Amino acid sequence: MKTNQLLYLSQDDVANVGLTMAEIVDAVERGFAEMGHGRVEMPPKPGIHPGEGGDNFIHAMPAYIPAMQSAGVKWVSGYPGNHAKGLPYITGLLILNDPDTGIPKAVMDCAWITAMRTGAASAVSARYLARPASSTIGILACGVQGHTNLEAMNVLFPLEKVFAFDPNKDNASDLADFARQLGLNVEIVDDPKKAVAGCDIVVTSGPILKVPHATIQAGWVDPGTFVSLVDFDSFFSREALGEAAKWTTDHIGQYNYYKDAGGYFQDCPEIYAELGELVTGGKTGRENADEITMAANLGLAMDDMAVAPLIFQRAVEKSIGTWLPL
Amino acid sequence: MKTNQLLYLSQDDVANVGLTMAEIVDAVERGFAEMGHGRVEMPPKPGIHPGEGGDNFIHAMPAYIPAMQSAGVKWVSGYPGNHAKGLPYITGLLILNDPDTGIPKAVMDCAWITAMRTGAASAVSARYLARPASSTIGILACGVQGHTNLEAMNVLFPLEKVFAFDPNKDNASDLADFARQLGLNVEIVDDPKKAVAGCDIVVTSGPILKVPHATIQAGWVDPGTFVSLVDFDSFFSREALGEAAKWTTDHIGQYNYYKDAGGYFQDCPEIYAELGELVTGGKTGRENADEITMAANLGLAMDDMAVAPLIFQRAVEKSIGTWLPL
Repeated sequence: MKTNQLLYLSQDDVANVGLTMAEIVDAVERGFAEMGHGRVEMPPKPGIHPGEGGDNFIHAMPAYIPAMQSAGVKWVSGYPGNHAKGLPYITGLLILNDPDTGIPKAVMDCAWITAMRTGAASAVSARYLARPASSTIGILACGVQGHTNLEAMNVLFPLEKVFAFDPNKDNASDLADFARQLGLNVEIVDDPKKAVAGCDIVVTSGPILKVPHATIQAGWVDPGTFVSLVDFDSFFSREALGEAAKWTTDHIGQYNYYKDAGGYFQDCPEIYAELGELVTGGKTGRENADEITMAANLGLAMDDMAVAPLIFQRAVEKSIGTWLPL
Repeated sequence: MKTNQLLYLSQDDVANVGLTMAEIVDAVERGFAEMGHGRVEMPPKPGIHPGEGGDNFIHAMPAYIPAMQSAGVKWVSGYPGNHAKGLPYITGLLILNDPDTGIPKAVMDCAWITAMRTGAASAVSARYLARPASSTIGILACGVQGHTNLEAMNVLFPLEKVFAFDPNKDNASDLADFARQLGLNVEIVDDPKKAVAGCDIVVTSGPILKVPHATIQAGWVDPGTFVSLVDFDSFFSREALGEAAKWTTDHIGQYNYYKDAGGYFQDCPEIYAELGELVTGGKTGRENADEITMAANLGLAMDDMAVAPLIFQRAVEKSIGTWLPL
């Protein structure tokens, strides 16, 4: 380790470090265990909103996980108009600090970590809420999150068949290619119900909307299915949500903030458990083969800070990145 | 300007850009004018507190100043134990984003900016609250903030004589050397009262303490003096504070937060004005030659974001720094 220097990792550097989804799922799960034991410091995430209309955001997401010797912040932006400019929706940087001195030790692109850790958090929820033998999965909206959620679920479950739904045919086709690379059978479906009914696991990963499009109706989700709602409650009618026996999230405080201040999650079921409580055993996960279980994880600074030290360590080992004077 | 690249500026790079204190005072004043007009987005600054005892902090300080096309965050740490390790108390980085796309365009060391903009904010307060012909200044505690406050006051006032007080003789001696470089007469004093009585401007810049050491007593501050309390209310007895005709701050919301949650500013006078209100003329500054006026500025993300774009622009012009791939 160099002193008085900072390691910079570009987006390519971060990806080239070669951290596997299995390692990321493991790190995120350990982070949730720390949260469940009340050993993570994670203040609210303030943001700024440049431009007109209030749709753009740049959020500061700080977290400190003592057990992982991890302290830092993610400064992540989301600009819906970027796609039209040929630019990514999500961009940003993550700063990792030495918890003993406060001095920054790395700056790294955060887009890859954000995509991967979000899929990993879904998989950690699924470990406690899905049936262990789950083999069929429906992915509704096949963008970045569709890919990483599929990859993460494939780490923990004996997946065989993927049903891919996306109004954008290119996205569906990309996900199908990715699924085949993972060794899975895949069927692109035009009817969203076909990516829900008959599936052991369902992931909704479309755009997050304040007024849900509510495509999924009551009766579509089979008994025993686990659903990860990466796009909050956007994909579900209220009646379909009401079928959940267990409705969970990764952070109740942040969930209530989104509900009260942001207008999301109106008329949703009562929260059964935080994910950290499931991981520590403070709350019981799935209790029988027939429960419909759901996770609406919001994405936490803890997720990022559970993964970032592994990226840093692996980059140092592999001599990836650029050392800069402080 | 390069696209898909990020400019990194080390601490030396930032200093070598050559931004003058006069330029920084001007930028910070324009930022306060924007604040006074309600045109700055600056959410609360959350933090983490690694280590034992809760004295260490790392704060996220985001701000967006549309008129300056400035959006970003400062991630700044303060570790009281660092001095004993031969490391600086304050370290950290500032990320500057393109407000139109959210994409980061620069990462720079924030220690120099933090030191300079804090002095500049004192000077902006003084412009509205000190007598224009102020020529004598007392500096109580002669560390980094003593230096930059003196430098900033010297930009706006016809200073002639500095009274320097610090229990640490090396600090006092350093400040005396610095004052002479600025062309000022300087006297190192052992009695803190000699750096208060008879001075047109007084700056207290010692350590920030929850329980004030309250060195400065009632009757020490002359009529007509302006005091900048960079170390909050640490240096003042309550009776001495009560002599202020106008007690001001840079941000009432943050002041009340420090008062209610942090335990600072107990039994202080009522706030007369925010600095932005003085700059825009919404509140009147000094009204006669006899008023004792005081500013307890807390340090704002706005200060940093008013200065950072100038650093960036000047660095690009001078080809300073390291371009990195995003």
